[in-house]
Amino acid sequence: MGTEVNNSVKETNQATGLNAVFNPRSVAIVGASSTFGKWGQLITSNIVAGDFRGKVFPVNPKDELICGLPVYRRILDIPEPVDLVFITTPAKTVTGILEECGKKGVKGVVLITSGFSETDEAGKELERDIVNICREKGLTLIGPNTMGIICPNVSLFATGSHTRPRKGSVAFVSQSGNLGLQLIHWAEQQGIGVSVFVGSGNEAMFTCTDYLEYMENDPHTNIILLYLESVVDGRHFLEVARRINQKKPLIVLKGGRTEAGRIAALSHTGSMTGEDAVFRAVCHQAGLLDVAVPWELLDLSAGFSSLPLPKGNRVGIVTLGGGWGVVTADECNQRGLVVPDIPGSIIETIGRYLPPFWSKGNPVDLVGTRDLDVPIVAMEELLKWEGIDAVISLGIVGRMELVRLLTQSTRKVDTSISSEFLDQIETLSQEYEKRYITRIVELMETYEKPVLGVSLANTGEGTVRPVEGKRYSGVFYQTPENAVNVLSRMVGYGRFIERK
Amino acid sequence: MGTEVNNSVKETNQATGLNAVFNPRSVAIVGASSTFGKWGQLITSNIVAGDFRGKVFPVNPKDELICGLPVYRRILDIPEPVDLVFITTPAKTVTGILEECGKKGVKGVVLITSGFSETDEAGKELERDIVNICREKGLTLIGPNTMGIICPNVSLFATGSHTRPRKGSVAFVSQSGNLGLQLIHWAEQQGIGVSVFVGSGNEAMFTCTDYLEYMENDPHTNIILLYLESVVDGRHFLEVARRINQKKPLIVLKGGRTEAGRIAALSHTGSMTGEDAVFRAVCHQAGLLDVAVPWELLDLSAGFSSLPLPKGNRVGIVTLGGGWGVVTADECNQRGLVVPDIPGSIIETIGRYLPPFWSKGNPVDLVGTRDLDVPIVAMEELLKWEGIDAVISLGIVGRMELVRLLTQSTRKVDTSISSEFLDQIETLSQEYEKRYITRIVELMETYEKPVLGVSLANTGEGTVRPVEGKRYSGVFYQTPENAVNVLSRMVGYGRFIERK
Repeated sequence: MGTEVNNSVKETNQATGLNAVFNPRSVAIVGASSTFGKWGQLITSNIVAGDFRGKVFPVNPKDELICGLPVYRRILDIPEPVDLVFITTPAKTVTGILEECGKKGVKGVVLITSGFSETDEAGKELERDIVNICREKGLTLIGPNTMGIICPNVSLFATGSHTRPRKGSVAFVSQSGNLGLQLIHWAEQQGIGVSVFVGSGNEAMFTCTDYLEYMENDPHTNIILLYLESVVDGRHFLEVARRINQKKPLIVLKGGRTEAGRIAALSHTGSMTGEDAVFRAVCHQAGLLDVAVPWELLDLSAGFSSLPLPKGNRVGIVTLGGGWGVVTADECNQRGLVVPDIPGSIIETIGRYLPPFWSKGNPVDLVGTRDLDVPIVAMEELLKWEGIDAVISLGIVGRMELVRLLTQSTRKVDTSISSEFLDQIETLSQEYEKRYITRIVELMETYEKPVLGVSLANTGEGTVRPVEGKRYSGVFYQTPENAVNVLSRMVGYGRFIERK
Repeated sequence: MGTEVNNSVKETNQATGLNAVFNPRSVAIVGASSTFGKWGQLITSNIVAGDFRGKVFPVNPKDELICGLPVYRRILDIPEPVDLVFITTPAKTVTGILEECGKKGVKGVVLITSGFSETDEAGKELERDIVNICREKGLTLIGPNTMGIICPNVSLFATGSHTRPRKGSVAFVSQSGNLGLQLIHWAEQQGIGVSVFVGSGNEAMFTCTDYLEYMENDPHTNIILLYLESVVDGRHFLEVARRINQKKPLIVLKGGRTEAGRIAALSHTGSMTGEDAVFRAVCHQAGLLDVAVPWELLDLSAGFSSLPLPKGNRVGIVTLGGGWGVVTADECNQRGLVVPDIPGSIIETIGRYLPPFWSKGNPVDLVGTRDLDVPIVAMEELLKWEGIDAVISLGIVGRMELVRLLTQSTRKVDTSISSEFLDQIETLSQEYEKRYITRIVELMETYEKPVLGVSLANTGEGTVRPVEGKRYSGVFYQTPENAVNVLSRMVGYGRFIERK
């Protein structure tokens, strides 16, 4: 993986080439197909169904129409300019296609095709040839052996997996296409907005580090995720990663942390990965956010992309049930967060809304109250107090799910309660939930402190709940352990940045 | 919490009383209501909508019909025998109602009402009085201040939260009703079968330990979950827990593990919890499965209740993508599991189905194959080899979700591919998934080794996928980290049991 790259060519490529790849005005797919399940069908139908903003030109020697679009025999037959070409045809056809791309004035190529350096010596040689052709012709090359790219800013969803995350600020480079796309699919389900995704494949022309540098300057990107199995340019990677991380949090999942993982990585990308201890030390020194498991990439993306950074580690907890407050306080302590005593004045204010035997402390246990104002009052009292840097709020947003279960069985068994009344209850719950989320986001803007919600429910609405016109979003994890983990990582990152 | 209990009364109660509570033939609800959202409405509508197998008698002084059932003025007006009475009326009404229950020959009372020892001195005294009345009258008392009970064996869902898990082998005692019910709701969503749930409330008559002893002898229960904030009878608890854990895995989440958690617990259940270090040492010594966070209770329940116990720590990994194999191998090593090299004969057999450049090792990377037999062949080859104790299989079951996304966009954009063909693809995927799950369960029966699936997808079908007539169930976690954690805990438990 990785061939030596002439620096001046590389810089030019990075400045213009990658930009053309990730923001094309027109794309062609060589190998486009209507045979269900072929790569050329997966990519073409995904691009078309994803409503790509530019023009789409299917290329193949046989068909007339694919996805309702006219098919061209060859790249050179296309009557209009083509910025980006996807190639899915066999390895042996690629050099010829690249020559045509050069003649046509194409800017970038995403080479889906496998059978290059990941297979054998002949494949390695073919890959070298291909890179040389691309350099000669000024073609920016992604892959080969990549699962594709996603650029929500131009509605370009060009992967084999038909998942289409919303537009947002999280960029993702993955050395495993398969793992990367699954994570992107999870991101879509969790409502996490994506600025760009690239499966780096064999990294024949660009390494992960190059992609990171592109993302460093991409105005749409604020957070960068990286799934890494190996780095060819360790020192350079570290330098770049450290620099970027000062501006944009860099969250890294390293595959091959252990002996078993290293053996697996060797057979996967054919490359040796370093010792975990060394990599972790390097991450730590550079302040990178290294995560141990895939789901953590998601959780951190949701938090970092949606919430203000906490300025310290003091947490206020607001809960609808005592037990949840206890386990959340436990997790906070376990992860270096402090759950401070709250002053009498705050206790007094909140106490006006609660029965006399309430917890009178932090966690603030709302004792299952149904007064809809109390959670907001409690949250604002905590946020405006200088002794608190963040609030974790449990069980308000998820409650709607329980309300729905209740109205459902009430409808079934008690006809004395009118259906209209139950409809109203459901509507009110929904409206309250919306208002509550909006209010949280407003409070975050006012006090510049994060509020991490815990829904306790698999609401089907995802972790991130954007609010129209607002910089921050509501964030609701399913469990307190997820919320506490994210908060503790945000505190750690904030401290690192501050020290610099 | 907890009053001293005369031992002989206690034993009698446990032998017959708790059995009557958890398997009643008829129930009455004092305070039954048609006012939406009142406790008496929540419980009554839940019991009726949940299709309780026995008779239901609403009791209140005003109404004629509740949930279509005739309402009785008082317990003594009910013309038939009543096994179990739920009370939701205010604390001051309770002694009178208990007197009536005694006269009526009621066996057990679930006292939902709060306002007893959790509030003040007067509440404590009232609670003592109530216990005395119950003892006198031979009434088995659950609570007060309990969120109710769930007994799927008789279809009795008697809590404020309308969640109804399927019948199964997991029992759950919770010192937080609110946390317990949320976990039960998650269990329902994950397809985990429940034998009995009890919110222990103020534990006026029975402590957690007493419930554990009931579950020890309950033929429906194979796994026991416990959410614990405090133990009044530490030595006895440990003795009982240790004994039970030899037969039925006992999974414990301890609230108040840290300073912040202890303070929270103090205001929640009003009781001092011990030092975490002591509790953990005790758990370790007794071989209990102590977990740190709520979700782990769920994950372990799914695994322990559905899979054979592994006899060692050697894992075969089958994956549809290299990256997932790498991170899974990493997690295995991280948690004390071994990912051994596989012998040439197995590599040869599996290799017949795969392209020449496949991984040829463990993890077995199926390189995105679409040959539907390969995953099963690879799994059986691994399971029948004596060098492997368990298999983790990634990405087969969840694939259907991706297929569905693909057929959906194909339908939208390419009319040249017939709708019938796409229907067929979806049907075949579904059927394959079913066959695959059945086959996994059959293989587990044949080889008595667990297979932990990783769906990588939020399939909406839950973690546990039972197969008609089979002892084991398919288990599919969303992420590899969850599967690896469960497997490592099962290995640990198996070793502990073996040593004894």
